Amino acid sequence: MTIVSPSHPLDPLTPSEIRHVAEIVRATRSPDDKTPRDYIFSSICLKEPHKDKTLAYLQSVSEEAAALMPEREALVILIDRPSGLVHEILVSITDEKVKSAKTLKNVQPTQHVLEMIEAEKIITKDPSVIEECRKLGITDMKNVYADPWTVGYHAQFKSSKRLMQALMYMRTSPDDNQYAHPLDFVPIYDVNAQKVVEILRQETSEASKYDRPTVPLENHQFLPEHIGVENLRKDIKPIEITQPEGVSFTVRGREIEWQNWSMHVGFNYREGVIINNVSYKDKGNVRPLFYRVSVSEMVVPYAHPKEPFNHKMAFDVGEYGLGNLTNSLELGCDCLGSIYYMDGVCNNLDGEPWVIPNAICIHEEDTGLLFKHTDYRTDKAHSARSRRLVISQIVTAANYDYGLYFYFYQDGTFQYEVKATGELNTQVFAEDENPAPYGTAVAPQVVGQHHQHLFMMRIDPMLDGRLNSVAQVDVLPSEYPVGHVENPIGNAFSPITTIYSDTTEAQAHGNLESSRTWKIINESKLHPYTKEPVGYKLVSPNTPPMLPKPGSLVYERAKFATKTIWVTPYDPDQIYPAGFYCSQSPGDDSMGLPAWTKEPQSVRGRDVVVWLTFGLTHIPRVEDFPVMPVETCGWALKACNFFLGNPGIDIPAAQKGTSKRVNGACCA
Amino acid sequence: MTIVSPSHPLDPLTPSEIRHVAEIVRATRSPDDKTPRDYIFSSICLKEPHKDKTLAYLQSVSEEAAALMPEREALVILIDRPSGLVHEILVSITDEKVKSAKTLKNVQPTQHVLEMIEAEKIITKDPSVIEECRKLGITDMKNVYADPWTVGYHAQFKSSKRLMQALMYMRTSPDDNQYAHPLDFVPIYDVNAQKVVEILRQETSEASKYDRPTVPLENHQFLPEHIGVENLRKDIKPIEITQPEGVSFTVRGREIEWQNWSMHVGFNYREGVIINNVSYKDKGNVRPLFYRVSVSEMVVPYAHPKEPFNHKMAFDVGEYGLGNLTNSLELGCDCLGSIYYMDGVCNNLDGEPWVIPNAICIHEEDTGLLFKHTDYRTDKAHSARSRRLVISQIVTAANYDYGLYFYFYQDGTFQYEVKATGELNTQVFAEDENPAPYGTAVAPQVVGQHHQHLFMMRIDPMLDGRLNSVAQVDVLPSEYPVGHVENPIGNAFSPITTIYSDTTEAQAHGNLESSRTWKIINESKLHPYTKEPVGYKLVSPNTPPMLPKPGSLVYERAKFATKTIWVTPYDPDQIYPAGFYCSQSPGDDSMGLPAWTKEPQSVRGRDVVVWLTFGLTHIPRVEDFPVMPVETCGWALKACNFFLGNPGIDIPAAQKGTSKRVNGACCA
Repeated sequence: MTIVSPSHPLDPLTPSEIRHVAEIVRATRSPDDKTPRDYIFSSICLKEPHKDKTLAYLQSVSEEAAALMPEREALVILIDRPSGLVHEILVSITDEKVKSAKTLKNVQPTQHVLEMIEAEKIITKDPSVIEECRKLGITDMKNVYADPWTVGYHAQFKSSKRLMQALMYMRTSPDDNQYAHPLDFVPIYDVNAQKVVEILRQETSEASKYDRPTVPLENHQFLPEHIGVENLRKDIKPIEITQPEGVSFTVRGREIEWQNWSMHVGFNYREGVIINNVSYKDKGNVRPLFYRVSVSEMVVPYAHPKEPFNHKMAFDVGEYGLGNLTNSLELGCDCLGSIYYMDGVCNNLDGEPWVIPNAICIHEEDTGLLFKHTDYRTDKAHSARSRRLVISQIVTAANYDYGLYFYFYQDGTFQYEVKATGELNTQVFAEDENPAPYGTAVAPQVVGQHHQHLFMMRIDPMLDGRLNSVAQVDVLPSEYPVGHVENPIGNAFSPITTIYSDTTEAQAHGNLESSRTWKIINESKLHPYTKEPVGYKLVSPNTPPMLPKPGSLVYERAKFATKTIWVTPYDPDQIYPAGFYCSQSPGDDSMGLPAWTKEPQSVRGRDVVVWLTFGLTHIPRVEDFPVMPVETCGWALKACNFFLGNPGIDIPAAQKGTSKRVNGACCA
Repeated sequence: MTIVSPSHPLDPLTPSEIRHVAEIVRATRSPDDKTPRDYIFSSICLKEPHKDKTLAYLQSVSEEAAALMPEREALVILIDRPSGLVHEILVSITDEKVKSAKTLKNVQPTQHVLEMIEAEKIITKDPSVIEECRKLGITDMKNVYADPWTVGYHAQFKSSKRLMQALMYMRTSPDDNQYAHPLDFVPIYDVNAQKVVEILRQETSEASKYDRPTVPLENHQFLPEHIGVENLRKDIKPIEITQPEGVSFTVRGREIEWQNWSMHVGFNYREGVIINNVSYKDKGNVRPLFYRVSVSEMVVPYAHPKEPFNHKMAFDVGEYGLGNLTNSLELGCDCLGSIYYMDGVCNNLDGEPWVIPNAICIHEEDTGLLFKHTDYRTDKAHSARSRRLVISQIVTAANYDYGLYFYFYQDGTFQYEVKATGELNTQVFAEDENPAPYGTAVAPQVVGQHHQHLFMMRIDPMLDGRLNSVAQVDVLPSEYPVGHVENPIGNAFSPITTIYSDTTEAQAHGNLESSRTWKIINESKLHPYTKEPVGYKLVSPNTPPMLPKPGSLVYERAKFATKTIWVTPYDPDQIYPAGFYCSQSPGDDSMGLPAWTKEPQSVRGRDVVVWLTFGLTHIPRVEDFPVMPVETCGWALKACNFFLGNPGIDIPAAQKGTSKRVNGACCA
C-alpha cells in the first residue's frame, strides 16, 4: 500500500492515511482482540505539528521546504469493550510506527454517531424498554426511536462507565417527525457493555391527575410529502443565482486565495472545519492574521431542574464532534451559485475511513452594499457591492441542526455565524400539566424546554507576527461632571482601553453598558496614523451569560462558557476548553480552561490564544415547531487601525448587471 | 386643475395635491409676500387621518367605503423670512380650503436640504469666511465647501434664530473627497437673514506648537475615476441574480401582498418610508399585526466636549427629514434582481412638488436557509430557503449615508436593518496633535470623531386587534440555591415576564445579563397551546445606552434615546419623540416622549405605541476612511406563540435550480 500524505502540514488525514494508521494500531493488538467490537476506533485524527514547525515549513523557500516538512502524526483513540479502557496511541505516519501509547481509565472520549446508531438498535430491543412502551400502549417496537445522548453526568457511575441517556420517541411512519411524539422515560445505556442499566421516568407534577403522560399522537410534520404538495405555497417565483464566468477564488490543495485573502481549510472529527493560516495581501505585502480558528467547544444548558431532564447538557463538540456530525450537502439547498465542495474524512468504529461527501461548501455570496456615498449637492453616487467568501458546514446533533459559516469580506472583515435550526428537543407533558416556567407548550402535550446555546471560538491570532496582546475596550461617559471645563455641556465620552497583562485579568464578560469590544493588537507595530498598535477588533452582539448558577453541575463542567473572553498563552495541547475528555467530565477544574488558567501567566506581547463565548438564550416559541426557523448568532473580527484605509476601496463600482425594473421606465 | 387623491387614506400627497395645497396657501398671503423667498414652504405633508377613521374605511365593505373615506388633509409648515415666524396651516384637500392656521415664534421646523444648498452658496461668498480661508492659504473660493448642519443648540440665540453651523472643507477638484480636507472654523449662519453671524474656530491643544492646524492637502479618494481603473480589482467575477418569472409580490397602488403578508407603503419628508397596516394571512384568516411602523427620530451624539465640536448632535429625522434626504436609487447598485420602484414626493422651498425618482426599492432576496433538519440515521434531509421582501430607501445626511431596510420573512418575522455608510464626519487637527480620547486619526491631520447613532423606531401594533399590552421578558437563574429540591443540581433558569401597567413602568433599558427581550401581546386572545396571550417578540442585539451624561444638552434634547423602550397610549399627534420642532429644541421636556409621559397613564390592554431605541457606538477605525464599510444595527419582531406553528412550513423544498458545482462530480 502506498500512502501519499498531503503537502500541507495541516491537511486532514486522507482515507489512505486513516486506513494505514488503523492497520499499524491493529497490529499492536493481540490476535484475541481482533474480533469485531472488542474495541472501537473512537477517533483517528491528525496530530497537528507544533506551530513553530508548521510556520517554519510554510514560510520556507521551496528548495528547503522538503527538509522542513514536519513529521506526519496521527492520534488514535481506542476504546476497549466491555472494559472501557481508553488507549491514546500516537502513530508516526512518516515512520509508519506507533510512537507512544498510554492507557487511561475513567475517561470518556467523544461519542461516535455510529455508537448512537448501534445503541438505538440495542435499546429498542431491551425487554425493560419494550415493557415501558407496552405500558404506554405501544406494541410495535419498529415505531420506537431512541436519540442517545451522552448521559451528561451520572452521580453513581461518574465517568467510570460509558453511558448514554436515550431520549425516546414514537413515529407513526418511517419518516414521521418523532419530536411530536416524545415518550416519558429515559433508558440509561452502557455503551461498552451494550445494555440498558437503568430506566428513568419523568414525574408528573403533584397537581396533575395523571400518573404519567400519555403519548401525544397528533402528527406535526414538516416534510413536504407529509404536508402534501397541494398544501405547499405556489406563489414563490424563482430567484436564480448564477456565476457565468465561474468563481473568483482559486484552490490549491486545501489552500484558498480570494480577494487578497488566503487561508487553509482544515477539518477533523471534533471541531469540523478549522480555518488555518489566514493572511491578507495588503498592497502586495502578505500580512499574517490568524494561525488557527475553530469552534472548540459548545454547551447547551437546559433549564429544567428535575430528573431526567437535568441530564440534558449537550457539549456537541466535546461529546459528539462537529466533524462526525457533518451533513453531506446538496446543490441549491444549502448554498446557491457556483460551489466548490470538499469532503470530510473521519473514521468509523472499525477504523476504516468514513467519508462525508461534500461536507464543506466553499462559495461566494453577494451581501448587499459594502459602501455608498452620495454628494447631496449633485446626487453623484458611488456604491460598491459587498461580496463574501463562505466556508461552511452543516451539522446534525440528533434533533438540532447547526449551519456553521466562516465569512471573509473584501474590507478585511472575518466573521462567523451560527444558524441554529432543526428540531427543538421536546418532552411530553401530561394533558393537564403546565410546562412553565421551564418550557413552552409548542403543541398539545409537547414541550420545548428552555435552553441556551453557548459556543466557544478558539482564535489563535498572529497579527503581523506571533507576539500579540489583547485589550478590552469600554466606551464610557467622561469622568468629568457636566459643566466642568473638560465637559462643559456634558456630552464627553471616550473609549477606555485595558491591555490584559495575565490570564487572570484576561477573563471578562460582555458588557452592553460600555459597548464592550476587544482588540487583538501587535504592540510591536504602531499604525502610522494612530501611533497605536495595529489590531483587529472582536465584536459579538450575542454574548448572554450562562444562566445556570455557579456551583451547578453544568456551570462547573462548562466553565469555559461562564466568561465571554479568556486569553491564554499558546500551548499546542490546549485546544479543547472543557477538556479533551469532555464527556461525563466531573466539573472539577482538572481539565481545559480552568486548569490552564489556575496560575496567572503573562499574555501580553506573547503568542496568545483568544477564547470567545457567544450564543443564544432560547425560550422556544410555538413557531419553532415542527421545525425551527434559523436563529443566528456570531462574531466578527474587523480590521481596526490595521490597514492604511478601507481595504475595499479598489472594488469597481456596482453595475446594473442583470437587474431589471418591473414597473415604469428607467430613471433619467 | 383636477386633483385626484389616491384611494388609500395613508397614501402620501401626490404632486398635484402638493401643487394644489401650495396654491391654496399662497392665496392666503398678501400680494406683498409673494416675491420669492419672503417665505419658504418647509414642508407640505399628508396629515394622516385618525386611526379610527382609517381603519373604519379600510375595514369597510366596498359599497360603504366611499362614504367612510376620511377627509384628505395636508399640514403645511411655512417660514417667513427674515422674521422667522412659523405658520402651521392645515388644509383640507377634500374641501379645497384652509381649515386652520396658527403662527408660532421661537420654533424651528426641519431644515430642508434646499436650505442647505442655498446656505452653502451664501456662506462661501461671505467676506469673513473668505478671509478665514485666505488665512489658511485658500484663495480660490470655488474649492471651498460648506456642509450646513443645524446648529444643535445655540446658548445665546436658543431657538429664536434659525441657525446653521457650517462644517467647512476644501476640494482639490469638483468631485474630490472633501472629508480629507476639513477646515478648522465653523461659520454660524442665520438661515432666515441669509447671513453669517459668527465664526467659531477650533483651538489647538495647549501642547501644540501650532496656533491653528493647516489644511491637510493629501487626497483620500474613493471614486473609481480618482483611484484609476488600472488600480481597481480585476478578479471579481460576476454573480448574477435573475428572476426569470418575475417577482412574487403584487402591488395595488401602494399596497403590497407577498407570501401571506400585506402592507401599505407610506412616505413623507420626515420619516421617509412608513409601513402601514401590516397583516398576515394565517390559513386564510387575515390577522392584523401593526398599524404603523417608522423611524420617528434619531440622534448622533458626538463625544468631543469642546466648541465648536460640541454643537455636533445630529437629529437626522427631526432636523432634516429622512424623506427629504432620500437617494434616487439605481438598478444593480442598491438592489439586485427584479425591482419595483416607488418615487418619493416632497416639496421644494417654493411649494412645488419635488419628486425623488426611484426613492423606494421593493424587491425580494434569498437569505439562505430558513430551516433544515436531517435524520442522522438515514441522512434524509429537508431544507427550505428563506426569502425576504425588502422595502428600502437610502438617505444621505451630508457626510453619512444610511441604508434603511424593512424586511418581511416567510416565517412571520418582521425586521428592520440600518446600514450606516458614507463618510465619517472628519475634523482637522494640527500636525502635532493627538485626537485621543475623542477621535481616531484616520489619515494625517484628519480625525474621525467618536459618536453614537441612536435610532428610535415608532411601532404602533394591533396584534389581533387594537388593544395590546407590552411585557418585558428577563431570563434569570432560579431563585433556589444549588441543591434545593427545586434546583437539585443548580441548572434551573426561567423567563420572568413583567407586563407594563403604565407609562412610568414602561421605560426600560436593554439588559444583556438577562437576555432581555420584549413582547407585544394581546391579553384578550390566549394561544390554544400555551394558554398565554398571543404575541410578537421584539429583539435587538444593538441597544447601547446613550453615553453623554444626564444633564448634558444632548441627553436632555434626545431624552427619547436614553431608554431602550417606552410604551405610550396611542395619540395621533404623538409621532415625533424629540418633538415636532426638534431643531434647536432646548431639552426642557416640553415636547415629545418626556412631555407625553410626565403623568403615568395606563398602557395595559390599551391602544399602545412602542418606542424602541437601537443603534451603534462608533469608535472610528482607519478602515472607515475614505469611505466607510457598512456598519449594521437593527431589530426584529418575531411571532412568539402567535401562530399554531412555524408559518413557513408550507414552503416547498429547496431545489438544485441553477446552482453548479465547480469541482469533481456530483455526489450520489
